[in-house]
Amino acid sequence: MRLRALIICTGILLCLSLAQAQGKAPDVVKYHATLETVKYVYGLAPPVARLAPGDVLETNTLDAFGDAIQKPGDTLALVKGDNPLTGPFFIEGAEPGDTIAIDFMALEVNSRQGVGAFAPGFGALNSTNYTPMIQAPLPERIWLYPIHPDDNTATFQAHDSSFSVKIPLHPFLGCIGVAPSDGEARSSVVPAEFGGNMDSSEASVGNTLYLPVNVPGALLYMGDGHAAMGDGEIAGTAIEVPLRVRLRVRVIKGQKIDWPRFENKDEIMAVGIYRPLDDSLRIAFAQLIGWIHQDYGLSELDAYELLSKVATIHLAEMVDPNYVVIAKIDKKYLPPRKISR
Amino acid sequence: MRLRALIICTGILLCLSLAQAQGKAPDVVKYHATLETVKYVYGLAPPVARLAPGDVLETNTLDAFGDAIQKPGDTLALVKGDNPLTGPFFIEGAEPGDTIAIDFMALEVNSRQGVGAFAPGFGALNSTNYTPMIQAPLPERIWLYPIHPDDNTATFQAHDSSFSVKIPLHPFLGCIGVAPSDGEARSSVVPAEFGGNMDSSEASVGNTLYLPVNVPGALLYMGDGHAAMGDGEIAGTAIEVPLRVRLRVRVIKGQKIDWPRFENKDEIMAVGIYRPLDDSLRIAFAQLIGWIHQDYGLSELDAYELLSKVATIHLAEMVDPNYVVIAKIDKKYLPPRKISR
Amino acid sequence: MRLRALIICTGILLCLSLAQAQGKAPDVVKYHATLETVKYVYGLAPPVARLAPGDVLETNTLDAFGDAIQKPGDTLALVKGDNPLTGPFFIEGAEPGDTIAIDFMALEVNSRQGVGAFAPGFGALNSTNYTPMIQAPLPERIWLYPIHPDDNTATFQAHDSSFSVKIPLHPFLGCIGVAPSDGEARSSVVPAEFGGNMDSSEASVGNTLYLPVNVPGALLYMGDGHAAMGDGEIAGTAIEVPLRVRLRVRVIKGQKIDWPRFENKDEIMAVGIYRPLDDSLRIAFAQLIGWIHQDYGLSELDAYELLSKVATIHLAEMVDPNYVVIAKIDKKYLPPRKISR
Amino acid sequence: MRLRALIICTGILLCLSLAQAQGKAPDVVKYHATLETVKYVYGLAPPVARLAPGDVLETNTLDAFGDAIQKPGDTLALVKGDNPLTGPFFIEGAEPGDTIAIDFMALEVNSRQGVGAFAPGFGALNSTNYTPMIQAPLPERIWLYPIHPDDNTATFQAHDSSFSVKIPLHPFLGCIGVAPSDGEARSSVVPAEFGGNMDSSEASVGNTLYLPVNVPGALLYMGDGHAAMGDGEIAGTAIEVPLRVRLRVRVIKGQKIDWPRFENKDEIMAVGIYRPLDDSLRIAFAQLIGWIHQDYGLSELDAYELLSKVATIHLAEMVDPNYVVIAKIDKKYLPPRKISR
Repeated sequence: MRLRALIICTGILLCLSLAQAQGKAPDVVKYHATLETVKYVYGLAPPVARLAPGDVLETNTLDAFGDAIQKPGDTLALVKGDNPLTGPFFIEGAEPGDTIAIDFMALEVNSRQGVGAFAPGFGALNSTNYTPMIQAPLPERIWLYPIHPDDNTATFQAHDSSFSVKIPLHPFLGCIGVAPSDGEARSSVVPAEFGGNMDSSEASVGNTLYLPVNVPGALLYMGDGHAAMGDGEIAGTAIEVPLRVRLRVRVIKGQKIDWPRFENKDEIMAVGIYRPLDDSLRIAFAQLIGWIHQDYGLSELDAYELLSKVATIHLAEMVDPNYVVIAKIDKKYLPPRKISR
Repeated sequence: MRLRALIICTGILLCLSLAQAQGKAPDVVKYHATLETVKYVYGLAPPVARLAPGDVLETNTLDAFGDAIQKPGDTLALVKGDNPLTGPFFIEGAEPGDTIAIDFMALEVNSRQGVGAFAPGFGALNSTNYTPMIQAPLPERIWLYPIHPDDNTATFQAHDSSFSVKIPLHPFLGCIGVAPSDGEARSSVVPAEFGGNMDSSEASVGNTLYLPVNVPGALLYMGDGHAAMGDGEIAGTAIEVPLRVRLRVRVIKGQKIDWPRFENKDEIMAVGIYRPLDDSLRIAFAQLIGWIHQDYGLSELDAYELLSKVATIHLAEMVDPNYVVIAKIDKKYLPPRKISR
Repeated sequence: MRLRALIICTGILLCLSLAQAQGKAPDVVKYHATLETVKYVYGLAPPVARLAPGDVLETNTLDAFGDAIQKPGDTLALVKGDNPLTGPFFIEGAEPGDTIAIDFMALEVNSRQGVGAFAPGFGALNSTNYTPMIQAPLPERIWLYPIHPDDNTATFQAHDSSFSVKIPLHPFLGCIGVAPSDGEARSSVVPAEFGGNMDSSEASVGNTLYLPVNVPGALLYMGDGHAAMGDGEIAGTAIEVPLRVRLRVRVIKGQKIDWPRFENKDEIMAVGIYRPLDDSLRIAFAQLIGWIHQDYGLSELDAYELLSKVATIHLAEMVDPNYVVIAKIDKKYLPPRKISR
Repeated sequence: MRLRALIICTGILLCLSLAQAQGKAPDVVKYHATLETVKYVYGLAPPVARLAPGDVLETNTLDAFGDAIQKPGDTLALVKGDNPLTGPFFIEGAEPGDTIAIDFMALEVNSRQGVGAFAPGFGALNSTNYTPMIQAPLPERIWLYPIHPDDNTATFQAHDSSFSVKIPLHPFLGCIGVAPSDGEARSSVVPAEFGGNMDSSEASVGNTLYLPVNVPGALLYMGDGHAAMGDGEIAGTAIEVPLRVRLRVRVIKGQKIDWPRFENKDEIMAVGIYRPLDDSLRIAFAQLIGWIHQDYGLSELDAYELLSKVATIHLAEMVDPNYVVIAKIDKKYLPPRKISR
């Protein structure tokens, strides 16, 4: 078991050394989620499984509609709850004030079609619960996207014309998060400091996600798989699919972060989540400046100036109750790292 | 002259056929701007030169500080006005209701160093005129960036440590715009429907910019050259440089647009400019949906859905009086074009 | 007991008829809160007392700092948690889909001084958790406000000069809310659909507050008493005081509301809570339009037009994690009511 | 002439002393505006009349639609331009860096009916140019409001029912402003630093408005009379009427302000104008804090704290290209004034 994990691990940042440092062979923990076992809230709940640091988790997620939309004519009235979550997973040794690292190892679309929809309450250019308008609402509409494993694409078929086009798959987890701090519990449609419905394509293979630990065991949840999504997710949905998930979880003891972060071999990425987008951006860059200052030793003002010249921004979504902006810098622009996470 | 223009033109969208359609040999118009001839407002002013559709303009721009910052110790008190503009250029045949197309052919940094600064009133994470805070303001700080033409880079040198790093050059015009509509005149620090201080790296070689024509002759201005800039331009400046500019101007008769647009061989891109970023994004996508609907024939709701799956977003800046978001779609996801511009 | 309740009730909308309709004599329920029994989250918790519809509750609340700041030199480091909440109170007969009505009967300042402070993370013109800036933060500062029961005022004493001035008291509950919907639990510093930290001076004697019921018994919490507060609460605190509270709770069966509402004999008032203020305003007016349409029979478009001519807006606060705007209309501008609540 | 002016002047702050100080008898300047002489831009234009400091101006304004809507069936297609402006008036002695003070002496509705409408591009809960939605737009609708000079009311008559109600008149100038700074010219629908389309009911009898002077003579414009308006002007219009206007203009030499201010005998009021409302509020309070600090001597931090306890906020409008928030403090909460304006 250990050998296989290590081989897959190649290229995942630091995972080999960490597994070794922890002095145990990582296990593979398998868990199968169903509509009966999913949750709809990030918060305290009995764990469905326990993971030791370095363990690999193999599990599955239902799609954002609980796999309820299957054929033409199915409507959103069939949906029991939005964004059913697989979990929670208890991460052994994770205590409040620590950080967990999640290495995405494999994500595969677990169905033959995906779903897109105008979901009431979501959408950047239509009335929502939080930006209500008095114009007539958009009609409910559902698009089905056949998935083609052979060429790794999905097909968009227009409703109002015969046009169709293939879209390359880039599977990622729209939802991944832990129990919030301060005793809060949050709906599975919300992204916030604890992660959650970030709808960030960064939550995919090749990247590591860092999340703050707020309760013993962290209590990791995931769901809302996306086969592909445009920046902003502007109509409110991606190509919604169930996923097969393989990821590794690590614990970084005694290092506290306030907001989610991503990293891969080339970039460090800080996530800002709130409304309006202006404040999401401010949070993301304030976090990235702090990260550069603490781990790479640049002064905060030098980091601010440097980012003004070389940062990149990913505007992940502007349709959930909070909006997500990710600020990034290529490591080639940074001094040697002083602190590893 | 015509031969040379046509050769350079290779790869610039449609320019050959248009020049031919217009039945005249494009000229190269040369104009040299100085601190004595620059403007600080987009509005009505006597033209400095006239361009026929298809003509190539060779000119220069001063940097955002009027080239006032030249050596360590120089301060912002030396700056006469922000974003001095070269122009206006009168485009023959351009009438209100038309669109002008600007093909960026060559942009070269025209100095041996660039300038970055914490300019009062600008910055995403500090007090500005429009987001005032009562905390003590940031100190004035100026970074000088040596330019290396040999390897096409500029050097960032930290103030508070010995760290330095090279940044690849990507020269573009921070400011490019026309006289506004409705008799308005706007400061050279403002981006809006007429273009202006968009701080969009899309205003560079390989791309075409479309701007609405609001007054006879359009009255084209440009300035604020950037050698390189991070997304968001978060500290308020890019690597500010004077530029040598070579571009072609075309007139698209009888096709009206409401906001600036970019295009290259791969993408169409709609620019949304306002505050907060939420509304910039809404404008950009409303424009892109309209563009797809009109020129490519998808229904608006199909376009909305498709963009939710494949759009990309460039958050250009969040530091000027208005903020700039650019919504893009790869043409490979679109039906064959029905209307050419 | 019943007689006393009825007498106090004079002028409280409908309470007499409702108590009669419910066919029982309202009781007075007394509960004393301490630092040991307060909560810091709106959510599920064992009730501290049970109230029948029509019952009067007599209780007390600690101040926003848990009464920790008592004398010059005391610092925010002494504060155990922000906004300790008295409760929850289980309202018998309240079921999800119902509305509870809270008639504020008496609120009295329960201390000889109040507290104002620059609390980190709060403030409209300084860095906060959600609008971070990289300027140096404001220094911690605490102002003590002597309370004068004789003339019903508190005294502001400037720190940096000898100026002092008396401020009339207008006691109200900064926090009052119920368990959220969808299994959420929210911090006591958050206002949202369930009410909470609304910092609305409307939560005071003479007004009725309506809250949606999300869980059996509603689970009512209150705290964060304010002796007086400016619109916007811009520095992040009011004159923070413990309160003695007397209020009546009613249950309106089968009438569902989505957001909190206030009412008195002259006005109906809809509360919008989110960020930015633009969306708070949209929510408040969308709710008020709906209320007018449903209860008073105007069409939505007539209501929209009429409000554009006669509405008033109270911008309650712009410093908590969500912002609060209250849209109001004088009943004299409305048709006769069709539906009573 | 002088005697009459002085009598009317009673209660207008300082006007007597100022007129005396200026050592001349104030004149009454009369000017009649028509659709042929109105302007649609705040900017440089030949003055229609000149006023000496202390002079009284008697003039008139057309309604926001140029008086084009007169009877049922008239449509917005009849409107030549929004917010036609009377002016500009050249104020003698006003130089850049000065402030002008405008004392509103009399405003009378100058027609027998007012107009309300869903004007495309305006409205807080419907698609606009700057907050576009893809839902179907609201239908054009026009409400006519009969004016009753006898009881000083206008009548709202519902479209979709027989309900009607009288609304008390409170006439004010929706537009009043000067030529902008920095060579800008702005549309008559825009409010900004120069005043303009502020839609603030404070621009009415009993109040003084202060505006910055940006060009010699200031160039004062006014228009867009409102017979009555709700806070927020949420559907995009007030009861739009032509007005008869009587006001006095003074010049305060050498005192520079950055944003408009209002004052009456009881309150000082700072105007913040931008988007989102969050930033309008920040501007208004930053200005009010600065005003209190400079003229009344409180430290900025004491002023911030005090305003958090006693400020009032008027959310004037959220429908124009910029939004208007007015922050106020009652003078009874302030130390004696050190600097008079």
